[in-house]
This record gives sequence, C-alpha cells and structure tokens, in this order.
Amino acid sequence: METVPHPARRHVLAGSAAALVAAGFGRAAAQTAGAPVSSPAGSPAAKPLPAYVAWKDPSAMIVHSSNTVETRRSAFGTSVVTPSNQLYIRNNLPPPSDDIVADRDAWQVAIAGVKNPRTLTVGELKTMGLATVAMVLQCSGNGRGYFPDKPSGTPWQVGAAGCVVWSGVPVRVVAEALGGVAGGMKYMTSTGGEKLPEGIDPKSVMVERSVPLEAMEDALLAWEMNDDPIPLAHGGPLRVIVPGYNGVNNVKYVKQLAFTPEQSEANIQKTGYRLSPPGTKGNPSQPSIWSMAPKSWITSPAPENGSVKAGPLQITGLAFGGLHAVDRVEVSIDGGKTWNQARFVGPDLGRYAWRPFVLAVRLEPGTYTLASRATDATGTVQEEMRIENVSGYVNSSWRDHALQVTVA
Amino acid sequence: METVPHPARRHVLAGSAAALVAAGFGRAAAQTAGAPVSSPAGSPAAKPLPAYVAWKDPSAMIVHSSNTVETRRSAFGTSVVTPSNQLYIRNNLPPPSDDIVADRDAWQVAIAGVKNPRTLTVGELKTMGLATVAMVLQCSGNGRGYFPDKPSGTPWQVGAAGCVVWSGVPVRVVAEALGGVAGGMKYMTSTGGEKLPEGIDPKSVMVERSVPLEAMEDALLAWEMNDDPIPLAHGGPLRVIVPGYNGVNNVKYVKQLAFTPEQSEANIQKTGYRLSPPGTKGNPSQPSIWSMAPKSWITSPAPENGSVKAGPLQITGLAFGGLHAVDRVEVSIDGGKTWNQARFVGPDLGRYAWRPFVLAVRLEPGTYTLASRATDATGTVQEEMRIENVSGYVNSSWRDHALQVTVA
Repeated sequence: METVPHPARRHVLAGSAAALVAAGFGRAAAQTAGAPVSSPAGSPAAKPLPAYVAWKDPSAMIVHSSNTVETRRSAFGTSVVTPSNQLYIRNNLPPPSDDIVADRDAWQVAIAGVKNPRTLTVGELKTMGLATVAMVLQCSGNGRGYFPDKPSGTPWQVGAAGCVVWSGVPVRVVAEALGGVAGGMKYMTSTGGEKLPEGIDPKSVMVERSVPLEAMEDALLAWEMNDDPIPLAHGGPLRVIVPGYNGVNNVKYVKQLAFTPEQSEANIQKTGYRLSPPGTKGNPSQPSIWSMAPKSWITSPAPENGSVKAGPLQITGLAFGGLHAVDRVEVSIDGGKTWNQARFVGPDLGRYAWRPFVLAVRLEPGTYTLASRATDATGTVQEEMRIENVSGYVNSSWRDHALQVTVA
Repeated sequence: METVPHPARRHVLAGSAAALVAAGFGRAAAQTAGAPVSSPAGSPAAKPLPAYVAWKDPSAMIVHSSNTVETRRSAFGTSVVTPSNQLYIRNNLPPPSDDIVADRDAWQVAIAGVKNPRTLTVGELKTMGLATVAMVLQCSGNGRGYFPDKPSGTPWQVGAAGCVVWSGVPVRVVAEALGGVAGGMKYMTSTGGEKLPEGIDPKSVMVERSVPLEAMEDALLAWEMNDDPIPLAHGGPLRVIVPGYNGVNNVKYVKQLAFTPEQSEANIQKTGYRLSPPGTKGNPSQPSIWSMAPKSWITSPAPENGSVKAGPLQITGLAFGGLHAVDRVEVSIDGGKTWNQARFVGPDLGRYAWRPFVLAVRLEPGTYTLASRATDATGTVQEEMRIENVSGYVNSSWRDHALQVTVA
C-alpha cells in the first residue's frame, strides 16, 4: 500500500555555468542520485500526530503540540491548493466533541446586529446562497521561529499557512436576508463554539474576534473546505472565513456572528493578538492582528533536503498579497543584493490566493543566500525587516525567510 | 479520530413557492432534519478499496473492481479541485511495483523522434522547466452506465472524472532542448511502463497511445499531482498529461515519449478506444478517443441523498468544455423543455479545468427532471443524445445525465 507521500523533492542537478541564465538543458549529465533527506534543524519531527488529526500526512507535517501542527517547507508543491491532509493546525482551544459533525446541517449560528436577528441552521444557510473563494489561511504567528529572541508561542517557520478553497454563503447575503446590518455597527464579531473550561472567566479564554465591518464584503459562512465538508479540526460544521485576514479572525465552530458597535471584550481581542512593541503588554490601543501583508518564501530547494548539485536549478516558491492580489515576485540568490523577476506558474485563483513561482538559474558550487520578495497590486513591497513585537506576530520579513543553500 | 469524510450533503429545505425565482431567505422554516443518506441504486458500495488505493476516502468512492474505482456524484463539492483521495481510478493494467517510486528522480523516459534522441531521468526533467495546469481527467467510459444496452466495461456514472492540478515540464520544452521534433512526425506516442504479462504478444496488452502532434503544445511530462508527487496509482513517478484529451491518452509510468509518423500499432490504439458504430469491430478508420467534448452534470441534489424538501434550493454541478474552455452552462428542472443560465462559482482555473455552477430555485412538492447543458468558448453545445458506439465511450448526453428528483 502506498499513502500519498510527502515529496522527497530531491534536487538532481549536474553541470556548471554562470548563475542566473535561463536554464536550458545544456550539458547536464544524466545524474540520478538525490541529496539525502534530513530533518529540518531542531524540528520535533518525531512527535506523532494528535489523534483528532491522525488523518494528516505525517511525512508532510511538523508536530509542535496537540494544537499546533505545521506543514514542512518541502511539502509545498506548485499546485496552488494545499491538500487538507497537509494543512497546518492551530487551535486556541481544543476542538469540540465530534458529536457536532454528526449532523452538520443542524449546527446553529445566531446572527445578531441585523434588523431582524435570528438563529439559522447550516441547513438553512445552504439554501440561501453559494460562493467559493480560494484564500491563504495563515496563522499570525507564522514565521515566529525566525525572531531571534524567541518570543513565547509556537516557533512556526513557513508552514503555518496554506491556500485553501472554501464554499459557503456570503455574509452579506445573510445580512441582507435579515434586513441588513443595524445602524451604528462598526465590526463583525464572531464567536467560536468551543467548550470553555469551567471555573474561570469565559472572557479570558473564549475565541471571539472582531474585524472591521468592511471585511464582511468578501466574508463567508463556510461549510466546505477543499471539496469536503470542513473537518472538525478546521472548524466544521461552520466557520467564518474572512479573506485576506490572519487565521485567528476566521473563527471555527462559529455559533454567533454579530455586527457590533465595539470590538469584543474577550481577551483574545482586547489584549491578545495585538502588535505590542517590545516591553509592552497588549492593549486595545495597539493594532489588532487583522489583514495580512505581502509575503513569499522559497519552497525548493529546501534546506531539509540537503545540499544542491551544481548546474541548472528551478527555484520555486509561494507568494501572496494578503488583503490585495499579489502582482509580482522577485528572487535573489545573493541575499538581496540583486533581484530577478520570477515567473508565476499555474492558474490564478484570485486576489486572496497565493501563486507558485519559479526562477530558472544555473548555480556553480558555492554558498548562496536565496530570498524572495512579493509585491502586491497596490505596489506594496514585502517588508525587508520584521516588525518587532512581543508575541512574534506577522513576520513577513524577506530577510528572515532567506535560505542558506550549499551547492556542491 | 475523524477522517476527512464524504459529505452527507443533505438538503435541508423548507417552505414552498413558485419554481425558478432567485432563492432569497423568505419564510423558510427552521427545519433541521436532513434526508437520510442512502446508497446509489445498484452501486457495489460494499466492496472494499483495493490495497494499493487504501488511502482513498472509502465513503466517497464506488469500487467496481481492483482497477476501477469511481467518485460518488454526491462527493463532488464546489471547490474546483478534486482531492487526490477522492479521485477515480482506472488502470488498463495493474500498476507496477512500488519500487519505482522509491527513487522517483531515477525514473527514466526515452525521448524519440527528436533531432537528438536520448533518455532523461525525472531528476533531469526537473531542471529543464516547470509548468502547472488544472485539467479535467476523465475516463472515456465515464457515463457508460447510462447506455441502455449495457456495453461491456465498467458502468461508470459521472465519477470517472476529476479536476486535477499537474506540474511538470512542458513537452515542447523537452523537445526543443533535444533539437526539436524530427521531420515528418504527425503524432506524439507515449508508452507506459507497466509490467506486461508473459507469453502473449505485447502489442495486445501494452499501454501505448498516440495523439495528434498538435496536442504536444500544452502537454506536460508531470511528476506532481495536487501538490504531491504523483501517487503510483495515478501514474507516478512520471505521467504524460495531454490537457483536453480523454484519460487513456494520459499515459502513466511513461517510459517512452516518441514523435512518430504513424499511430501506435498497439491494440489499445489500433482497434481499442475507437468510436465504433454499433455492430462493428474497432479499426483504425474509426475516430480515436482523443479530445473531450463539452459536458456537465448536476452534483446536488444527488439521488443517493434521498428526496428533497420543498422550498429554496441551490442546484449545483460541474461543467467543462474539454478541449476548449467552458463558456456557460444552463440548468433545466423540466427535463430540457426550458433552460435557465446558471452562475459559475469560485475561481476559473483555466481552459482545461471544470467550473462549479449553481442555480438558485424554489421547488414545490412534485417530481422534477434536473438537467444541465454546457457550452464551450467556440459555441459548441453539450450534446443532447449520446453517440451510439459499441464500447459506450464519450457519453456527454445531457439527457442521459438528467436526474429524477422527488421534492416533498
């Protein structure tokens, strides 16, 4: 029996010539031995998958804890959509009992802050409308592992992200059906259906996130992910999807969606997920972790696959714009001294999706620092330096994501 | 533990009104019970998955035999890409030993009919170029189950098809690197690497298919499928991908790709996969099963999910153009007497992909015949009647694919 395996994306390269010319076939010898596959430095690769996500591909994943599981850099391919069994896991609370997916259509969500508030079942939502969006889902802590001062939290590298296709009913269709958003509302506030631990203030642990009202425009109440009912681990039966926004805003097991004049009073909104300058505590005056910025990273060659053979090489990676479409991406092999425009490959799945890219080079033996830099449709360029913050959030620094590669 | 399950896409509907008005929310009652999920009539659902595809989702599949496994109509969602673990299986011969995927980059393919013929490894191909295409992969026998005279062969319904993303090197890039296609060549002929049974003429069983030379333009030598190395069951380590062409032309485990002046002499080309009129035997004068025609089908409501409740309903389905892009799709609820244009949902993955569609209706209690009809970018409309042929190939008849639905 074969499982669908994690790619041993070995780089079988031969020959040598000047770098950065389009890689034709040339004189490359018929060499077939690949570089040995080794574990990423420091990754806890040996931990088994938690039982509730035992259906994930273990060879593609790095297990940090029962609620935090990352996709390996080398497991990303060039097919745009991240398979569900390779998508990262990040839960703020343990998922509810799987009783809630026994009859998915019976799940209820209260819609508040509209003219005619009411509770709707998933079954009813399915009769009201349908839209599908491809979207980068990314944990706001993705890239935290590159902060040198090791902020508390999971030390994600690049794999707390995936490009996922969601289907559901547009939030605006639901709001319109209930008479429209009530006056004076400034936020869309979603409440998760996790079971809260007893004996402590619910506000201290509940998952309730507010996003600016304008985010409702492309938001979905989604029941399908990658052609399947949303798995429990990813927020099924019903998840609010806020394209262009960091993962935490896409509330799982959503049991209430409210249009509100103020942001939630829950800790996860009030003091958590804030861009807190070093030495400060989170507070509502600091920026909330909302929309995503342009970002990209190289997926191949990946350091976990060992050294690269000299000769022609296709450098591949992923680039996205976050709130806006990605417009272009550049690749450097000299740590950012010089840049070359890479080519997008494959279909464009829209504004909120990522795009695989490729740059053909020839590399002589030596050491190279590979980096990539995305630019969105508004001209915003991926930032060079991380924004220093207490919790290690939103690391889009191309410099932090650069790779040292040895070519032999 | 939860596996990523097959959708019990229950239709939870309530209320009643005239058919075919846009489904707003209206007075639909908060009804939550879904229709019971039953097995498709006559499907051999109880057969277990063959060991080499035990990683497929059993609840999404209908197992016909060890080499023929179909996706259930109700397992298709609206996320465009068919997950690998739900993609149909159709092998003309048993797959080779999984030894061949132990070192994928070592797999060799001979390129012939070029100025400088030579053998290349997958590792070498990966240095030569990269392209990604989303493509409907469809067995030429898909829909055979709707032929009333039951031709021999698997009685596929709609599920011997999927929309798959492939990555590899363009065939034209490989041909150019080897000096270009030699003069006088009219076909691209691909040979599969299956182990042939001994003691019989290889030509009688080998998988070797020729397609017109122009098909090379968008063809790939592919090593990746849906972001993973191509699983053995689907032709890994290397498969030739001929977008717009029926499945059989996408030769698995490809060990030779030759540009040839004539079509292959193998039976699978010479006499097999021909559009043979009733009462005739296959011969080279009959059309070969090459490019695909416009086709569509409804995925929800699916008869296997039982009766549908009266009220608002989102009728969904899949439509593709085959060789050309799909331009529009219409839906009928009265067996083709009247048609209504449906709306595509989600991203457009390009000319060779399918597009999910939706039409919002309201249905009163009664019996309905639901049908869909695709039109491609050249104006060719999906055919009403099947092309009668001995082997039950290329059934694109919208009438055959219509569904009787009871609304209660």
